[in-house]
Amino acid sequence: MSASNNIEKVVIIGSGPAGWTAALYAARANLSPLVYPGRAVSKDLVPGGQLMLTTDVENYPGFPEGINGQEMMDLFFKQAMRFDTRVVTNDGVATEVSAGLYSQFQGAHSIDLSKRPFAIKGDDGYDCLAHSVIVSTGAKANWLGLENELRLAQSGGGVSACAVCDGALPVFRDKVLAVVGGGDSAVEEATYLTKFASKVYMIHRRDKLRASKIMADRALENPKLEVLWNKGVVDVLGDESITAVKLKDTVTGEESTVELSGLFLAIGHTPASDFLNGQLELDAKKYIKLADPYRSTTSVEGIFAAGDCVDSVYRQAVTAAGMGCKAAIDAERWLADQGIE
Amino acid sequence: MSASNNIEKVVIIGSGPAGWTAALYAARANLSPLVYPGRAVSKDLVPGGQLMLTTDVENYPGFPEGINGQEMMDLFFKQAMRFDTRVVTNDGVATEVSAGLYSQFQGAHSIDLSKRPFAIKGDDGYDCLAHSVIVSTGAKANWLGLENELRLAQSGGGVSACAVCDGALPVFRDKVLAVVGGGDSAVEEATYLTKFASKVYMIHRRDKLRASKIMADRALENPKLEVLWNKGVVDVLGDESITAVKLKDTVTGEESTVELSGLFLAIGHTPASDFLNGQLELDAKKYIKLADPYRSTTSVEGIFAAGDCVDSVYRQAVTAAGMGCKAAIDAERWLADQGIE
Repeated sequence: MSASNNIEKVVIIGSGPAGWTAALYAARANLSPLVYPGRAVSKDLVPGGQLMLTTDVENYPGFPEGINGQEMMDLFFKQAMRFDTRVVTNDGVATEVSAGLYSQFQGAHSIDLSKRPFAIKGDDGYDCLAHSVIVSTGAKANWLGLENELRLAQSGGGVSACAVCDGALPVFRDKVLAVVGGGDSAVEEATYLTKFASKVYMIHRRDKLRASKIMADRALENPKLEVLWNKGVVDVLGDESITAVKLKDTVTGEESTVELSGLFLAIGHTPASDFLNGQLELDAKKYIKLADPYRSTTSVEGIFAAGDCVDSVYRQAVTAAGMGCKAAIDAERWLADQGIE
Repeated sequence: MSASNNIEKVVIIGSGPAGWTAALYAARANLSPLVYPGRAVSKDLVPGGQLMLTTDVENYPGFPEGINGQEMMDLFFKQAMRFDTRVVTNDGVATEVSAGLYSQFQGAHSIDLSKRPFAIKGDDGYDCLAHSVIVSTGAKANWLGLENELRLAQSGGGVSACAVCDGALPVFRDKVLAVVGGGDSAVEEATYLTKFASKVYMIHRRDKLRASKIMADRALENPKLEVLWNKGVVDVLGDESITAVKLKDTVTGEESTVELSGLFLAIGHTPASDFLNGQLELDAKKYIKLADPYRSTTSVEGIFAAGDCVDSVYRQAVTAAGMGCKAAIDAERWLADQGIE
């Protein structure tokens, strides 16, 4: 199965808010984009991106009553497909939405940027050549890897990897919450959550925060915030919703239980940039570096990037979608500049 | 009517996609934002922004069937108000959506950035002090100022100031279209429209394009594109939809009529930055300069900017919304850094 005779104008890798928005704009610009949406490789890395792991999305503008994360990605997908978007599946290229299509999505396995057109190898044999590529592969929140943790995260049971997204939900108001981590993000998220919670624990494996001194000092002065030093989470308790976490002291090995109503992971994210195999410039945390931070250009001309794989700061559906739009407009203008019709 | 005893944590000026998204995020961060949405000062400068002048929006992700521009802004507004957003109206500060509220919206007349907290004067006497401000006042497309032009633009009658937004609409497929202007944007938009149209005229007042040579050369080589040199549009003809434009030769004064099915204005935009009275750094075209183009910070600490008033490149609802989100997150973190609760 190969499309190598046909050089794609623009290939989009990824199917979160950035990917489908890029596809929507590219399709409306008559570029007939080909999307490698990606396959479900694990419970926490699935096509559709991070929103597939959340229930209520209250902060994507346009939905005053909120919307379910999976429904929202389905709307994005359908809108891209309404125009001339094509997706790579187990059965080749699909141009229409059909039942079960999600489970047949294929990803891009690798990409060769050393020659033009660029060569893309699919997970399952669907390869292609492309004049331009939009990388929107996202990032995955790091989880502890506990079975109950991911189960409760996916069911809206009070476990989350995004305080900005979920902290304001009514279920967390005036409740005891905890943040796992000790870096800048963890301190930022714990401080943010004190606006809503009755109390916020920070659960940290060491005896010192990694956050900058000024942030750490302010956090330690916050009367609603208490750091549980030298503690690791060994289990998450609760049937439908989280009720407590079981902790283990990293020094003494002693176990304890803390009752709470919400757990927020803040132990970093991992951008999905490994498949690029060093061919695009990345930053120290492996996020793709933009050549011009206002635009979507990267270190290789003709390769554009959008969404959480370039964003270690905001990580919101609407910021990712905005970047997807920019990438498609940039790609369209770049192709026009190259005289590629 | 004054709120000067109460210092606002964050004031948002503007009510397009950037403004309401900033309000949504700031409200969910418990900042209880105060929005000066702006008043309708003319037919083409109204609260809600540029989308209020469009009918079908097909490229805001989340609405596979498209959505009416005014309905979309109503959803944005309601979502911000669902949380703790407050808006300045003729009758003071409103905290709930009610019938006729739009017609009572008030704007910010001026702002004094020389002291902290910043002082904001409302159009109609509602003044306030603010620790931080998000400027999202938008930009207005420049129009020729012809009565039929704006009428047909607002009724979806084939007149538009955004080829990227509207060019792919079915009504323009395989039709004769025209772009007014001779700069880079005009050439870009005309080239873009050749993908859909049977023919695209560029109507230009002079005998030479202002666009860069390489772009101009490529445009002139495009078989679907024809420049009508030394022509100004003096009238737009058509009852429900545009059927023709009346042109006048800028050299000979001779009048002529060209039949067409769509007219796209590309004679620039004017960002709404005058009210800042030189207190924020602007670029040569009067767009607000970002201190860090990846973020929303400006030349004055505590002042953030988002949407079309900073964006001369993309100008899309979803990019503006993404910037509004960034500005609220930046403002929230800046306030936390300052220890302002």
